[in-house]
Amino acid sequence: MKYCFGVDLGGTTVKMGVFQEDGKILDKWEIKTRTENGGEAILPDISKAVLEKIEELHLAKEDILGIGMGVPAPVKEDGIVKNTVNIGWGYKEVKRELEEMTGLKAAIGNDANMAALGELWLGGGMGYQNMILVTLGTGVGGGIIVNGKPLVGSHGSAGEIGHLCVNYEETDRCGCGKTGCLEQYASATGIARLARLRLAKDDAESVLRNAEEISAKTVFDAVKAGDKVAIEIAEKFGKYLGHAFANVAATCDPEIFVIGGGVSKAGEVLFDYMVEPFEEKAFFPNKGTRFGLATLGNDAGICGAAKLVLDM
Amino acid sequence: MKYCFGVDLGGTTVKMGVFQEDGKILDKWEIKTRTENGGEAILPDISKAVLEKIEELHLAKEDILGIGMGVPAPVKEDGIVKNTVNIGWGYKEVKRELEEMTGLKAAIGNDANMAALGELWLGGGMGYQNMILVTLGTGVGGGIIVNGKPLVGSHGSAGEIGHLCVNYEETDRCGCGKTGCLEQYASATGIARLARLRLAKDDAESVLRNAEEISAKTVFDAVKAGDKVAIEIAEKFGKYLGHAFANVAATCDPEIFVIGGGVSKAGEVLFDYMVEPFEEKAFFPNKGTRFGLATLGNDAGICGAAKLVLDM
Repeated sequence: MKYCFGVDLGGTTVKMGVFQEDGKILDKWEIKTRTENGGEAILPDISKAVLEKIEELHLAKEDILGIGMGVPAPVKEDGIVKNTVNIGWGYKEVKRELEEMTGLKAAIGNDANMAALGELWLGGGMGYQNMILVTLGTGVGGGIIVNGKPLVGSHGSAGEIGHLCVNYEETDRCGCGKTGCLEQYASATGIARLARLRLAKDDAESVLRNAEEISAKTVFDAVKAGDKVAIEIAEKFGKYLGHAFANVAATCDPEIFVIGGGVSKAGEVLFDYMVEPFEEKAFFPNKGTRFGLATLGNDAGICGAAKLVLDM
Repeated sequence: MKYCFGVDLGGTTVKMGVFQEDGKILDKWEIKTRTENGGEAILPDISKAVLEKIEELHLAKEDILGIGMGVPAPVKEDGIVKNTVNIGWGYKEVKRELEEMTGLKAAIGNDANMAALGELWLGGGMGYQNMILVTLGTGVGGGIIVNGKPLVGSHGSAGEIGHLCVNYEETDRCGCGKTGCLEQYASATGIARLARLRLAKDDAESVLRNAEEISAKTVFDAVKAGDKVAIEIAEKFGKYLGHAFANVAATCDPEIFVIGGGVSKAGEVLFDYMVEPFEEKAFFPNKGTRFGLATLGNDAGICGAAKLVLDM
């Protein structure tokens, strides 16, 4: 049996896992992301954790295929990142440094692409080869898998589905500075924004008016309870998400869209509001494209990073 | 030196070429597409033309790497097409049949993807690896190249950029049955449609009112002559095309968009109306994406089909 490491580097913690090549997780754990001093301790900390785990589990180093790592930044096959503000790095040859520190092969990918690859390998996209993971969290992220591999793009920023324009009439600005981005309607913060706008529009009765805070969860809980105002909000969310998916499908022609992130905890109810607008705007070969939920939660990143090594 | 054939199967003619592996065209010619009787003569006609050309040029059959062919239908790597109405075919195992008839290897692709691959190899996309060809003709077609290879998609219909929705307020229907497709604004027929709508709106003076027919060519000729109404039409065309490109760039992150098809004969003036709307809606990593014109004209398809063989 061969083994590989999957690492998911985030702004506060580094998630780590050691996998058998058949996908079984032997162990997973987290370490702190030390972002101080330009993040200079991050790669040494990860390398140390990997080498200690090899010893702890009595693995032979020649049975380790390598270390895969997702980073929260655009990154191409060369494993070089440029200016990753939220972990302190400027220009950094991540792949080369990690290989030198550990004596193991390394493969680096963008975190959203790693999550997509993880869901393809062991999660909601199992059995597919052309899949798009859309993560509805604080923002909207995306990872596109084509023939089993991440679509990286020329700047390492393919799959930025959250910043597709879906409403050319929008006047409010997205965090990115543009107007009408999908993220303004389909992220957790976007859904809360839609809810606040709807509640301010008139005095229609809604359980949301008594909620301690307006969040994607309170909105979808209210939808499930049959709240009419919440349903209107869900329809707007679903319309924009469905329309964005139709444009992405015309472009990339996936077999399935897999939805992850915090908002996806609402479950199948999301599809009730998204599939019809998708079908309305889908080009005919894309009608009937499947939709599924991500299943790996926070482990998607380490799974995909490990798979990146297996695919080297 | 090795050689390969590139074939571009259209509804009325089959374009054919024989190439050296370095890209030099040794010969090119056309035969008629005989669509009668379910198109049963098409592959025998092509096979005969290939074998005769090998004899005529005194090529050794072992020096022929194979035959690449673009077909006007969705097609995946297996080379099977299903229901290609405009050439008479139903289900057809094109790759297998062509190989059996000629004793040569065959590779089959979608015609739009072949044109994109051709422009990448020998045309407006030379030197790039991530390129999108958008063909503005009677309709709007597209071919996406990722790391030097066509993005095929799960139904063989990736790159259908003409059917991205770019105007959610549109009430007129596209030929595909949907509303607001890019094709309704950026194809030759779409530009003529925009022109007719604009001219009907009021009595503003325009040289277009004296034109024998309203076409993309008459519109862009009038733009070049400074006609204000024509410029308004070009602005609308450019807005929708630029906005569509911004969404495609966020999805696929290409290095360059190459514009081909009849409308592209208008030349660089197209960029004058498209780049600003693109930049306005582009996600930040995609700002500065390049734009170029296709250079191969009707030869793009045979060039790309030949390249598909070289890449086998």
